[in-house]
Amino acid sequence: MVSELGRILSPEQVLSGPGAQRAYDCDAYSVDRSKPMCIVLPESTEQVAAVVRWCAANLVPFTGRGAGTGLSGGALPALGGVVVSTKRMNQIVEIDIPNRCLKAQAGIANKRLSDAVKDQGLHFAPDPSSQSVSTLGGNIAENAGGPHTLKYGVTAQHILGVTMVDPEGEILELGGKVPGGPGFDFFSLIVGSEGTVGLVTEAWVKLTPLPTAVQTALIAFPTIRDATETVAEIIASGVIPAALEMMDRGILVALEAAFGLKYPEGTAALLLVECDSNLSAEPAGELVQREIETVAAICQAHNAIDISIAQDEAERQKLWHARKKGVGAMGRLAPSIVTHDGVIPRSKLPEMLDFVYEVAERHGVKVANLFHAGDGNLHPCFYFDDRDPKQVHAVIEAGEEIIRKCVSLGGSVTGEHGVGVEKQDLLPLMFTPDDLRLQAMAKQIFNQGNLCNPCKILPTEKSCVEHKKRWRGVAW
Amino acid sequence: MVSELGRILSPEQVLSGPGAQRAYDCDAYSVDRSKPMCIVLPESTEQVAAVVRWCAANLVPFTGRGAGTGLSGGALPALGGVVVSTKRMNQIVEIDIPNRCLKAQAGIANKRLSDAVKDQGLHFAPDPSSQSVSTLGGNIAENAGGPHTLKYGVTAQHILGVTMVDPEGEILELGGKVPGGPGFDFFSLIVGSEGTVGLVTEAWVKLTPLPTAVQTALIAFPTIRDATETVAEIIASGVIPAALEMMDRGILVALEAAFGLKYPEGTAALLLVECDSNLSAEPAGELVQREIETVAAICQAHNAIDISIAQDEAERQKLWHARKKGVGAMGRLAPSIVTHDGVIPRSKLPEMLDFVYEVAERHGVKVANLFHAGDGNLHPCFYFDDRDPKQVHAVIEAGEEIIRKCVSLGGSVTGEHGVGVEKQDLLPLMFTPDDLRLQAMAKQIFNQGNLCNPCKILPTEKSCVEHKKRWRGVAW
Repeated sequence: MVSELGRILSPEQVLSGPGAQRAYDCDAYSVDRSKPMCIVLPESTEQVAAVVRWCAANLVPFTGRGAGTGLSGGALPALGGVVVSTKRMNQIVEIDIPNRCLKAQAGIANKRLSDAVKDQGLHFAPDPSSQSVSTLGGNIAENAGGPHTLKYGVTAQHILGVTMVDPEGEILELGGKVPGGPGFDFFSLIVGSEGTVGLVTEAWVKLTPLPTAVQTALIAFPTIRDATETVAEIIASGVIPAALEMMDRGILVALEAAFGLKYPEGTAALLLVECDSNLSAEPAGELVQREIETVAAICQAHNAIDISIAQDEAERQKLWHARKKGVGAMGRLAPSIVTHDGVIPRSKLPEMLDFVYEVAERHGVKVANLFHAGDGNLHPCFYFDDRDPKQVHAVIEAGEEIIRKCVSLGGSVTGEHGVGVEKQDLLPLMFTPDDLRLQAMAKQIFNQGNLCNPCKILPTEKSCVEHKKRWRGVAW
Repeated sequence: MVSELGRILSPEQVLSGPGAQRAYDCDAYSVDRSKPMCIVLPESTEQVAAVVRWCAANLVPFTGRGAGTGLSGGALPALGGVVVSTKRMNQIVEIDIPNRCLKAQAGIANKRLSDAVKDQGLHFAPDPSSQSVSTLGGNIAENAGGPHTLKYGVTAQHILGVTMVDPEGEILELGGKVPGGPGFDFFSLIVGSEGTVGLVTEAWVKLTPLPTAVQTALIAFPTIRDATETVAEIIASGVIPAALEMMDRGILVALEAAFGLKYPEGTAALLLVECDSNLSAEPAGELVQREIETVAAICQAHNAIDISIAQDEAERQKLWHARKKGVGAMGRLAPSIVTHDGVIPRSKLPEMLDFVYEVAERHGVKVANLFHAGDGNLHPCFYFDDRDPKQVHAVIEAGEEIIRKCVSLGGSVTGEHGVGVEKQDLLPLMFTPDDLRLQAMAKQIFNQGNLCNPCKILPTEKSCVEHKKRWRGVAW
């Protein structure tokens, strides 16, 4: 395999051996691991297509991989085979300012897209927390969200076209500078398909004007309920913040322990609210100022104990620490963290949060919450010691209860992290067997051989029995 | 058929006979006509499902229909059979203000959605020109756009969930109050599928805050090129107008002839520009004022000969006449109009418009243009006498040349009117045979028997041979 792929690409574009295998045996969902046979580093769509054609001809499974920051195992090479890394496909192909779009290779880091057009007053709006490393291709695969999703939408809303290598190794072009197009629209099948219908190698992305004015506030509340009720009230007021994030006491304790960050005495929850405007006219600044004042007044009426509004960019960055450093801080509290990802109608936030704490207490697990409150996108983080099987069991049980509650409140089993291998068993909570049959048909439009990122998303693929049999029958 | 369907529903919910058949033999694309056997008027999802189950069991084709305003033949009952009208399914099911969404039946007129939540300061943003009659279900089937698409997006971006009766008569629920969800996302397969994958009976739609401030300007230019170049410049300035519409001299002549509307001497093109803001804070009005002044300054620099800015709502409505009455006015100029629908990257507008006039002149056909310039969505209208076969031929030839040019400039064969039966032959301009095979597979996920709105979209279905054979073989 290594020598054949080395002939198709070049020998130094194929990694193998125990070190390489270990480095690529999981993504950020490290609970599941599976070693690939080798890793290839193609540099172009044509090279990706050549690798895929070889895999298809030899019945070798393959899995695409960007930066490996995915949180549900999307880049896990579940049956081994070949990992197709986009590491060397990190170039911008074309920038078209008049039509406000840009074409780039899939392996480019999200943030580099925005950096490239900053001087023109534009940016690529999706901003997952991992944006300094996570790739355009990975963002497309997972339909990534981020703090600014509330106002600007998820990745799907910013992709105009893709170049994709299908599981047979054919190159497809969908969309382009102009969105839409005739016939059945495959976009939502591809964007968010977690890499199971082909490998996106390049994409046209929409560029959005940068905010011309920004105001950021960090507000401390004495109870969780005060904070969650404030979220509903802010939205009801007509203000659409660019970001509306919530952190609970568990996060604050972690931030203080890890980084010495201090928040007001008696704080049970923090809200981070950012308002912006990209309007070109002069009084945008004044307008955003008034919006943040409206937000502040609503917070005050809901018992806020402290309201800090950033006076400059340095202060703004400081307020964002509470949000951006939260996960890192948690990492220091316990050997393991499991971050759950569910979504509910945002009016159910108070009820849902009460439930999260009740469940955690009942199972005796520690929980902290840091999430996109404005979207109703919940991220309870359990922290525990994964060397203790009892703790692991409790975390799994508590997580499932929470996800079931999300569904019963009219929400979904995943808000933005995807299904991958993590949530396959939970799909039947939302889908009937008939629904799942339709889902399988959707996948098969592109992926009939099931060599492309096998064993993902659908519960029926969890065991991958058929596939494993066939794959084990061949020489690799 | 009539008596069996009358038993399933009630006799007065089934229309038949020559008068009814003629009334339902086409939509607004009246070039193609085909009589249904009968028309049913169900009142609920369950009744739609019962009708579809009967059709599936008896191999009778069926076609959904809203208000029949579609422009590419989507509601044409190509093989006869049953037309399922949503006329009696026009109720709002639930309004949820805190979560900014609303559930309604498919047959409700678009505008009624906005009327229902106006007092709460909200609206349903998609606004096709037909919005006072065209239905939510039809808007979903065609993924309708409208003048305000530029800022607010097409229908797909405002649909959170649908209830759909699949072609076997099963009821599927997709999405809900919360967008997204796990697994493969069928939304873009369903929204915009032109009624070929099932009958959407209810939908959850997103509600958007109403503008708190609006400014509207109508600007006259001495040449088409001045107007098209102004469009590019406005977008480049950072202003995102809520609407940016263009009307050429052909439309002005029609408006004067039909309604006595007068525009400044020497006008070759009009731009209608609307800026708005739904920001809640006070200075929104001032901000929008500045935006319209920015627009005016750009127009001035591009040789505008007249700039009218509405001072109140009455004046605003008057300025909109140029846009809204344009098509009606055209109807008085000639017995027939064909409105084409293509889209190009908006920077190509000047080049494209030059081409449209050149083609029209070469073929000796009259053309007028009225379109969503900000989106690059072109609508050349040919007006002619369809009793003269030579004129009909010239119109068809000219239309095809224009659509080919759209594709060659990086655009698409349809911007917002759909493929239906009108543009099936043009799909190979954009799709390879392999692409079309994938398209057919997408349709077959839901519609295996091909009884649901047959003979649409895919060029291979143009003849519908297999289907006709089978259908003729049965008793109906």
